[in-house]
Amino acid sequence: MPHHPAPADPDASLLLEALRENSPGHSAVEPHLRAALTDATANPGRLLRARLVFRAALTHGLDETDALTLACAVEYYHLASLLLDDLPCMDNADTRRGRVCTHRIHGDATAILAALALINRAYTLAAFSLSHLPSGLRLRAHATLDAALGTAGILGGQARDLRFATSDRSAREVAAIAAGKTGTLLTLAIYLPALLADPSSAELHHLKALCLYWGLAYQASDDIHDLLSNPATSGKTTGRDRALARPNLALALGIPAARRRLHRLARQASATLEKLSAFHPRWRYLADFQNAFLAPILAREAAA
Amino acid sequence: MPHHPAPADPDASLLLEALRENSPGHSAVEPHLRAALTDATANPGRLLRARLVFRAALTHGLDETDALTLACAVEYYHLASLLLDDLPCMDNADTRRGRVCTHRIHGDATAILAALALINRAYTLAAFSLSHLPSGLRLRAHATLDAALGTAGILGGQARDLRFATSDRSAREVAAIAAGKTGTLLTLAIYLPALLADPSSAELHHLKALCLYWGLAYQASDDIHDLLSNPATSGKTTGRDRALARPNLALALGIPAARRRLHRLARQASATLEKLSAFHPRWRYLADFQNAFLAPILAREAAA
Repeated sequence: MPHHPAPADPDASLLLEALRENSPGHSAVEPHLRAALTDATANPGRLLRARLVFRAALTHGLDETDALTLACAVEYYHLASLLLDDLPCMDNADTRRGRVCTHRIHGDATAILAALALINRAYTLAAFSLSHLPSGLRLRAHATLDAALGTAGILGGQARDLRFATSDRSAREVAAIAAGKTGTLLTLAIYLPALLADPSSAELHHLKALCLYWGLAYQASDDIHDLLSNPATSGKTTGRDRALARPNLALALGIPAARRRLHRLARQASATLEKLSAFHPRWRYLADFQNAFLAPILAREAAA
Repeated sequence: MPHHPAPADPDASLLLEALRENSPGHSAVEPHLRAALTDATANPGRLLRARLVFRAALTHGLDETDALTLACAVEYYHLASLLLDDLPCMDNADTRRGRVCTHRIHGDATAILAALALINRAYTLAAFSLSHLPSGLRLRAHATLDAALGTAGILGGQARDLRFATSDRSAREVAAIAAGKTGTLLTLAIYLPALLADPSSAELHHLKALCLYWGLAYQASDDIHDLLSNPATSGKTTGRDRALARPNLALALGIPAARRRLHRLARQASATLEKLSAFHPRWRYLADFQNAFLAPILAREAAA
């Protein structure tokens, strides 16, 4: 079941258009690479991260064009991570969002080049959308990108993921990998636009905690889902975690304990949001996002 | 025969130290990924691009720290391109600079993650080293990175390279691939620090021509070398171009015609350098670099 944003959603329409317009897959690009890029940017899923960045950036004072540009950057990093994750030498997936994976259609090399093209364009978009910031904030934003996208973030998580089968397979290792792989891009989506508000150190502390709770909750839900569901309902290759000794919280803890952890994380996120809103009403968009983001996850677990 | 910079060269010592210090392979990184990064940054070849960027950036007014940082960025992009180029799904090489390729030691996935880590860190280093520029020049620098590293540059060249065997295999296609793959990183090494000087449009025109001549000369020399040499003298897997129907100018034109072209490109580069120096003496470092860069190439061909 492909995840498409509701067409009536005005943010989604703007974001889909921006994802197409900023795509590096212009008409002179080699046709296979162009096709891979068109597929990726035309089927971007629920646009969770892009919506959050767009709303946050608008709230914190970017104009609509720059806010869309920054949102595209974060979504391109995410799309690139999916292309790379699915490769045979990584998670070796066949389907994603109900469609055959890019590398299965165009080959591994073209999937890698498409991911690199999205990453390269994302850095350009980030630099342009942040170019009007004062130099101190701008450098903090670049350092945030480095931490999230480098060996301290998603690449470090993926490297540990590759060696998971030979690790102790503990819940702790599963959580560390989830924080690196899933957590860092959510962190980027929260933290990068939040820097525009020049937050106090107490606000930054709560923002970081929120990123962690959301990231781990999302991964816990995904892991429970992987064990319980099948490809027809999830839109991607599932049930693989058990077969391939992949890091999965529900495998490490058992499904009931994983569910309790998911609900605890959701409560911790809500408590953190209340503290943030007490500091300043400018953080209320995060509560709106949590409703849109976590509510379906919790409903899904309640129904399962 | 591994290419090591002469230890007495003070620029090389500074650059080697900066490559180590800026490396994303810090002590907390997963050990295989860290080993791959240490190998890459400790054996960076002749540092052609880094030396050029360092000298150019100093000439055009960056302080030593920022000049080293920018040079590291360009060298990391180059090192990443080598890691990716050697993958089985790309050029499928076994050795590089006299050493076993990273993916053959640590696996394809770790080689890909190492390349991404270098690219991510390179964008951060570029953003930091250019952060004091006026906004207009800074954005031109980011646009230059986008053009060189994206689908209009090295990724576009690599995508055409992947499909070369099914193309017309003409000298024109070979040159287009060489311009994309080899030319763009040389272009970056010339063009990015040259932007610091806020060059006139006439100067930019000559700089671009110089990038093209150097890039094509370098590739022509490499292609002739591939047909004539063996792995023991070149330090990388050779003689493969013929076997694998890879783009090779000397295969497309024949060796005598490829040599004539190489010498013509060298003459064109020299004439362009004279024009640039006539505009302004600040471009003389490019003549020094050409002596260090093209003289050994031409001597090699004369001796072969």
